[in-house]
Amino acid sequence: MAREHHLAPSERSQAYADAIFAIVATIMIVPLSGEAVREIAENENLLDGIGEIWFKLVVYALSFGLVSSTWDLHAWVFRMIEKVNETIVLLNLGVLMLATFLPYAFLMFAEHPREPLAVALFSGCVAIQGFFMLAILWHASSRPNLLKKELAQQGTEKMKSLRTRATIRVLIRPVIYLIAIPVSYGSVEVAWALLVLAVLKPVLYTVGDAIVQCARGNVKSGTKLLKLSRLYSETSDVVRTNAYSDGFYAIVATLIILDICVNNVPATGLLDIHGTLAEALARDADVFLSYAGTFVTICLLWYLHHSMFYLIRAQNSLLLTFNKLALLFAGYLPIVFKLTGEFGHLVRNQNSSVAVQLNSGTVFMASIWLLAIWITAMSKKSELLRPSAHNIHDCIFMFLNLLIYPIVSLVIFCVCFAVPVPSAVINGAQIALIAVFILLKLLRNWTQRCVR
Amino acid sequence: MAREHHLAPSERSQAYADAIFAIVATIMIVPLSGEAVREIAENENLLDGIGEIWFKLVVYALSFGLVSSTWDLHAWVFRMIEKVNETIVLLNLGVLMLATFLPYAFLMFAEHPREPLAVALFSGCVAIQGFFMLAILWHASSRPNLLKKELAQQGTEKMKSLRTRATIRVLIRPVIYLIAIPVSYGSVEVAWALLVLAVLKPVLYTVGDAIVQCARGNVKSGTKLLKLSRLYSETSDVVRTNAYSDGFYAIVATLIILDICVNNVPATGLLDIHGTLAEALARDADVFLSYAGTFVTICLLWYLHHSMFYLIRAQNSLLLTFNKLALLFAGYLPIVFKLTGEFGHLVRNQNSSVAVQLNSGTVFMASIWLLAIWITAMSKKSELLRPSAHNIHDCIFMFLNLLIYPIVSLVIFCVCFAVPVPSAVINGAQIALIAVFILLKLLRNWTQRCVR
Repeated sequence: MAREHHLAPSERSQAYADAIFAIVATIMIVPLSGEAVREIAENENLLDGIGEIWFKLVVYALSFGLVSSTWDLHAWVFRMIEKVNETIVLLNLGVLMLATFLPYAFLMFAEHPREPLAVALFSGCVAIQGFFMLAILWHASSRPNLLKKELAQQGTEKMKSLRTRATIRVLIRPVIYLIAIPVSYGSVEVAWALLVLAVLKPVLYTVGDAIVQCARGNVKSGTKLLKLSRLYSETSDVVRTNAYSDGFYAIVATLIILDICVNNVPATGLLDIHGTLAEALARDADVFLSYAGTFVTICLLWYLHHSMFYLIRAQNSLLLTFNKLALLFAGYLPIVFKLTGEFGHLVRNQNSSVAVQLNSGTVFMASIWLLAIWITAMSKKSELLRPSAHNIHDCIFMFLNLLIYPIVSLVIFCVCFAVPVPSAVINGAQIALIAVFILLKLLRNWTQRCVR
Repeated sequence: MAREHHLAPSERSQAYADAIFAIVATIMIVPLSGEAVREIAENENLLDGIGEIWFKLVVYALSFGLVSSTWDLHAWVFRMIEKVNETIVLLNLGVLMLATFLPYAFLMFAEHPREPLAVALFSGCVAIQGFFMLAILWHASSRPNLLKKELAQQGTEKMKSLRTRATIRVLIRPVIYLIAIPVSYGSVEVAWALLVLAVLKPVLYTVGDAIVQCARGNVKSGTKLLKLSRLYSETSDVVRTNAYSDGFYAIVATLIILDICVNNVPATGLLDIHGTLAEALARDADVFLSYAGTFVTICLLWYLHHSMFYLIRAQNSLLLTFNKLALLFAGYLPIVFKLTGEFGHLVRNQNSSVAVQLNSGTVFMASIWLLAIWITAMSKKSELLRPSAHNIHDCIFMFLNLLIYPIVSLVIFCVCFAVPVPSAVINGAQIALIAVFILLKLLRNWTQRCVR
């Protein structure tokens, strides 16, 4: 008990981890958005330019998936931990260091997939991270004063079996990746197969768990594990999902100004040649309009996320996956912002419409998954929603709010096929949507007053 | 009461704001670190190169100060608010949008200080942000169900006077900035004087407040306001300081990998010319060592911050200022990381020692302010520390922990004058410091056991 007061609550370690994971997942898009515009500027056609860098866009998505799944596991491990001591704080920093290194290792792997050394670097990074995570798990599970109360109160026997299962869950990926390292020096293709196998980790774990349960005689509970309904039934709280999403939207919203800072401050020398500052700024008007439109979009997506998750109490795997997809597509917004600003005003060629279509298409994808989250939550009301949100009136208005973005962006996307749309239209529409949200809010208050 | 359940707790809006402010304050360093190395590569001498970009480094510091003081005011306003409705969430997004635009407006002002338009852009941005903040304040203060309980329970009269004082505090800067806009078209110099005047905002507010109090007859309480001890006596809770610092350290730690991702993935074509991937990686060994050293330093600074603020319950103005200074210097770490990685291995010329000195000097500045925070907190134990932290044993060990970085970096800095130090030494030392922290922790546990 004398050392009890060295134990800090785990919130701050978790918040720091959330921030780092969110930034790591997003920051990969920065070099891409610069490169994308450069590559595309060399091509006459925007679509051909996108074709040149499609592989990097996919690598970004895969890297996002990798970082998100690591974050996932981190959240799962820390869900058992109530308080942290110095050892856990330091081990957690080890996990985070490897997390920030992941994008590099992954980029290296994507650039040189046939080099065993690149495979070893990537696999080694993931494996060491897994062992740090395992160290946190073991350190905490042997100290009941660090664990959540409900865990600490369980018997030693049950705690032991829980720890074994958790160990297996944390270790599956690192072990597969470690095996891939020597294998890659023999045959790179087999090593790839192993890395792909690791993606199936949850399936492997569930099947393994079911087999162990059946072997122990619990055939009923073993076969129950194999049912697909587990996707819906296992729920966890949403605190860290909120923190991760906050960090993600915040950095996406900030990255777009970085671009403006680098490219759109006219140098003193240039002003003497090209006229006054006002003229220089007027030339960049498209970029500023695009900035305002994109910023408003990102913040309103966050606003929808905020309003929705205020009503949501718990998440299941499906909801978590939809949330990741919503974030992934929001992560592409800095690129489409840049493309819209650069190419949107060239109405004389096809590029303008293509830029606008890319923009509205990305917004559609980023918003449709938010709608999917809400539908998932509504279909499991009793488990996932707060009791106060069972009011049907609220649910419908949330649904209407979530419909605005998919509908508007889909309409703009389709109109582009018929007539060329300049970027000013979509950016103007994005800013005008604030009014729609406010109107809908007033409508809700009004109908509520009528009902009463 | 029917609308009560539309009120979400204000935590998530605050967390989102903390994340955005932290990222905005840090992200300005990204373009600088690339430019710094380019400018310096053109010069033979590292110090001359730094001389070329010193003005931009100062602009970064000023921009950091501006964003931090905006964050400060935001935290102050939200300290009164318990719950948020949709209006406040949207107004808050308005504040944040202008916050992300601040670095651009400020950079423009720094580049063209004599252009009235640049002054207008910068001042307008700050002024509009102030009005959004005021709107939040007024909206909340007229709705008792949004306010903190202790505020809502006060009488209408007291609430009104409180709101007036808060309005004045929020409005001082926007009004001065608004006046500066027309003035700048007459004389830019007078406009500058006005902008500098706004930095003295807290002084202006205190003097104004004291005069109003004296005029009302409360001479005693009026003169009391003017005492310097107010710097120590007014305290507030540290939740948001923690969140802001977390975001700040997290993004600084992540920015350094961004640089490696962009510059140190050897392209496929280059490999055929320059040999194997292993050789290419070996050539970049300095950069990786520098990455590891810098990451460990940033994370251990966060660790010190975390251990210290776990013991700190409240902050006064002095402590908050020291915290800002600690963050400011941590923000320079991505630049010195890049310089150490690029120039640290050229032991044949003077640049290596200069790079190492810049690195250790920055670490010294980033850590000495943490020590200053702890000394401030210790000198006001009863108000600022948690009751559990009054144990003298703990305080001494915290102090020893905080001494490690200043001492080690100062020693390295001084040694550089005598003998040329390659970057590998400082980076190695940075990594080895983990062991020192662990040893100190074991020592503490051991002495504690002896005492018992």
